[in-house]
Amino acid sequence: MSKIITISREFGSGGHFIGENVAKKLGITFYDSQILEKIAEETGFSKKIIEDQGEYSPSKSIFSYAFVGRDATGSSISDKIYNAQSEIIRELAKKESFVIIGRCADYILRDNPDAVHVFIHGDEAVKKERIMKLYNKTEKEAVDMMRDMDKKRKMHYNYYTEGEWGKATNYTMTLNSSKLGFDKCIDIISEL
Amino acid sequence: MSKIITISREFGSGGHFIGENVAKKLGITFYDSQILEKIAEETGFSKKIIEDQGEYSPSKSIFSYAFVGRDATGSSISDKIYNAQSEIIRELAKKESFVIIGRCADYILRDNPDAVHVFIHGDEAVKKERIMKLYNKTEKEAVDMMRDMDKKRKMHYNYYTEGEWGKATNYTMTLNSSKLGFDKCIDIISEL
Repeated sequence: MSKIITISREFGSGGHFIGENVAKKLGITFYDSQILEKIAEETGFSKKIIEDQGEYSPSKSIFSYAFVGRDATGSSISDKIYNAQSEIIRELAKKESFVIIGRCADYILRDNPDAVHVFIHGDEAVKKERIMKLYNKTEKEAVDMMRDMDKKRKMHYNYYTEGEWGKATNYTMTLNSSKLGFDKCIDIISEL
Repeated sequence: MSKIITISREFGSGGHFIGENVAKKLGITFYDSQILEKIAEETGFSKKIIEDQGEYSPSKSIFSYAFVGRDATGSSISDKIYNAQSEIIRELAKKESFVIIGRCADYILRDNPDAVHVFIHGDEAVKKERIMKLYNKTEKEAVDMMRDMDKKRKMHYNYYTEGEWGKATNYTMTLNSSKLGFDKCIDIISEL
């Protein structure tokens, strides 16, 4: 039986760090940007386009997005990437154990009995401090980045899934990493 | 230092059972209906009214509710009960460790550094089975009960707090009891 852990996360909450360390602890693959290579191979799009469109589109609004970049079949670049990454994630889940970050993987694997779905969030002040340090940003830049990234993740998720980003019922477990600390989060998730 | 655990829950998710057993395991008080007695003493309202209004009002809509039962100060019975129970919960939190179920306690104690806030939810099919067995109901009755109770809890919560019932970011942790099992939930919460 494979063990699959999907991690969705607020920007700055340490979800990436936590996911990486859970994978290390369990000795299983960690899929983050590696998955971009696979999608690039599959679709022919560049990694840069996939990075932008695969988790953060539609980037402004569903309306501006709905009327651009669609081909004769009515699929936009984002739709093609979403479909390819769904297919790839489902195929990987048949073959191996892994931790995967973002990419609506919780929704894509919602019916997979081997998968547990985790959402990591945090307190505004703690996330802000972390972003300032990690990306060398001012306080205002950090707050703007946080708002912008979370808004895009939310829009992308709500557009491609029937769920609502950050709603407890989508996930097996949600954790506040600012309250619990990264180590405790890693322990709890590893023991699921 | 006191240890306070607030538990919010979907109807049928076993949140009450889980909370009761966490309190037992930690050897701390479990506040459920006991708190009604305290609110009754404080407000002079009967336990029955407090039970109805203290967690499940406004019962129909904010509009029908907004125009009835207010006194000269503009407070409704629900407002009075909400204010009294907030005061009681905050006072208890200064004195002792406990687990408390519902009653917007997560919101009331949101700034208390000793408190952790847990939301328990579950899969529809599992919750339905549990309600049918526990309350001796037909499938349809169980589904109706579940919808009705959760709708009331949600309306009450969203009315009295700035938060949104069931949104991950309100809580330190949320758990799907159908996926994890009651025992695992009890263990995880006890070790927070």
